[in-house]
Amino acid sequence: MNDVAEDILLARAYLSRVAEPASVPLWSFVREHGPLEAAQRLRAGDAPQPVLAVTSARRTSADGQADLDAARRGGIRLVVPESDDWPGLAFGALERNCVNRASEPGPAPPLALWVRGNGDLATVGQRAAAIVGARAATSYGEQVASELAYGLALRGVTIVSGGAYGIDAAAHRAALGADAATLIVSAGGLDRPYPQGNAAIFERAEAQGLVVSESPPGTAPHRHRFLTRNRLIAALSTATVVVEAAIRSGALNTAAHCVSQGRPLLVVPGPVTSGMSAGCHALLRREDYQALLVESVDDILAVVGSAGEGLDQTASLVAPDRLREALDQVDVTARRVFDGLPAHAEISVERLAERCGIGVRDVVRAVPALALAGLVERSEDGVRIHPAMRQTRR
Amino acid sequence: MNDVAEDILLARAYLSRVAEPASVPLWSFVREHGPLEAAQRLRAGDAPQPVLAVTSARRTSADGQADLDAARRGGIRLVVPESDDWPGLAFGALERNCVNRASEPGPAPPLALWVRGNGDLATVGQRAAAIVGARAATSYGEQVASELAYGLALRGVTIVSGGAYGIDAAAHRAALGADAATLIVSAGGLDRPYPQGNAAIFERAEAQGLVVSESPPGTAPHRHRFLTRNRLIAALSTATVVVEAAIRSGALNTAAHCVSQGRPLLVVPGPVTSGMSAGCHALLRREDYQALLVESVDDILAVVGSAGEGLDQTASLVAPDRLREALDQVDVTARRVFDGLPAHAEISVERLAERCGIGVRDVVRAVPALALAGLVERSEDGVRIHPAMRQTRR
Repeated sequence: MNDVAEDILLARAYLSRVAEPASVPLWSFVREHGPLEAAQRLRAGDAPQPVLAVTSARRTSADGQADLDAARRGGIRLVVPESDDWPGLAFGALERNCVNRASEPGPAPPLALWVRGNGDLATVGQRAAAIVGARAATSYGEQVASELAYGLALRGVTIVSGGAYGIDAAAHRAALGADAATLIVSAGGLDRPYPQGNAAIFERAEAQGLVVSESPPGTAPHRHRFLTRNRLIAALSTATVVVEAAIRSGALNTAAHCVSQGRPLLVVPGPVTSGMSAGCHALLRREDYQALLVESVDDILAVVGSAGEGLDQTASLVAPDRLREALDQVDVTARRVFDGLPAHAEISVERLAERCGIGVRDVVRAVPALALAGLVERSEDGVRIHPAMRQTRR
Repeated sequence: MNDVAEDILLARAYLSRVAEPASVPLWSFVREHGPLEAAQRLRAGDAPQPVLAVTSARRTSADGQADLDAARRGGIRLVVPESDDWPGLAFGALERNCVNRASEPGPAPPLALWVRGNGDLATVGQRAAAIVGARAATSYGEQVASELAYGLALRGVTIVSGGAYGIDAAAHRAALGADAATLIVSAGGLDRPYPQGNAAIFERAEAQGLVVSESPPGTAPHRHRFLTRNRLIAALSTATVVVEAAIRSGALNTAAHCVSQGRPLLVVPGPVTSGMSAGCHALLRREDYQALLVESVDDILAVVGSAGEGLDQTASLVAPDRLREALDQVDVTARRVFDGLPAHAEISVERLAERCGIGVRDVVRAVPALALAGLVERSEDGVRIHPAMRQTRR
């Protein structure tokens, strides 16, 4: 299964145990010297002071082999940056924030990921949306999370979340209900699903998708690990959708990671009478976050990928060659415009621009190409999907 | 009661009848020649073709004296630009849009306003908020409209709306329930409250505030008059708050007028599962509108005026000299910051900046002055209202 030399796995297992996740000094040290030399020098106490400081508690006691053995007994594998299925692109922003921001670097990319399940970690994030929110979600929040996750999963989008109660669970469950992959990013060791009450969701996620964690088996899900875990949820997703969040919700932390990684932050509004939407509204009001208000699956699809891209990945929804050929004739912007069209109704160019999140002028420019490719037809009040393309699309 | 010469009133009454409201050619003609000459020349058919075109139906039959007599019998007075209580500032943006935008002028300011009630039209708009929305409002929308209108009315803000069912009615009722003034801008003649089912609200609004219309007595509330009426709701308000609106709601038309007049547009979000909030979300997504998401009375107060300004106008809430003196010591920005503080809780500078809608840096700069004036005290996690100022404030 694994394509990486055992000594590298062993070194990475040791490094994964030796400091808490997201440590910039340790990550930089490994980046400079490679995992083998870094592990060797750490064990010998031969490292710069900041690295020794963050590893002092476990530097001599950590046992990579024991962790690897325990993992294998539990069906857990270690995926490392040297692996074929390491999702390197997902962590590009974290890397840049460490390397380029000398004054305030971090948090660091992961040194390795412990993984359980049948999916392929490298492809999961190509078209993935995090759906996160309050544990103490309302029925409104759970309903919206379920509908969004189900609709996205049907369109080939992997649903990423933290496996917690409330919004997380509703999102994972709906994706699983759509017979689609879902990705749980756990804060503790994978041998102890947390919370226990969601153990069935973890099991099904392993069967249909993946459960990952930065922490070696046996690690308890402490609070600070949730906060560093949240950066991975954002990193492994094309965009993060916050469905419900109180004013001090952990989901706001995930949202901050999403923004600092330069990913689109999407936010579902709710009743102003609900404290569980107050955090969402606070996000929408932050000018520096440039969060997009989303209401529907289509709103999110307009951001995480076009219909043309998605169709390739969704076996059950593969379109007839005709639609794919037509989409191949138009450019990315036009595909995005096409993706923003409602299933049946006509739509004004202005409204379509809103739905796609691009300028009216760009929509106007895209329409002739879409019409020429037979994808849309123009009507008195705007455009609509060409009837011949309609039934094959959703 | 009226300070204007009878011949001018008569000319304006005729002009008010002779064309539909918001006619740019007629307004420009009156602006150029004054009401007396304009009325005289129109009756004689001596006017440019565009003016003759918009007045052809009623130019010879209109009877200003009959309208004035009918109005007086019904307790209705005519307020004209020559009157002391003409709200000239409110219509500045409409005037500029007519005069400066040669290619696409309009809609025009009103030529005159028919008014019933005890309030003073000139002062009403100094601190006024329009609260508008769907006629087919949900209980959520009516609850939010009521709470916002009640809270604003208690703080001395005049609630402006259209007297319709749903959000309008909830807003007017709540303002009246706070024993405050409210302003109904009606689409038809004031002798026929529309809708009839809200006649009791019109009566109470006349007793505690004002009902105004551009249309002479006897005019039916046709659809196009609602659309031109909406520009007056926006014009007579410091800001417009949309509480609930379907995707084709008339409230979106009021919102568009608000924006084109350069006024702040405030929007209350709601459940994405509710069609009655879909229009609100569409407004929030329009980048060109720069709408502000609002959740509370304080959010709106931060836009329509500071506590210090409001206290002068609200007899029942006049603060002790101490608070007013303290507020006199700080500048406008600091007053706005003070107004954004929650009644009791402490608040972080970041959150406070959000609530006030100003930059964090400006809040940080304002806090020392506020503390020096004894208005706030700094705490570990931010600032709060000084206890001595707290009880006197709300």
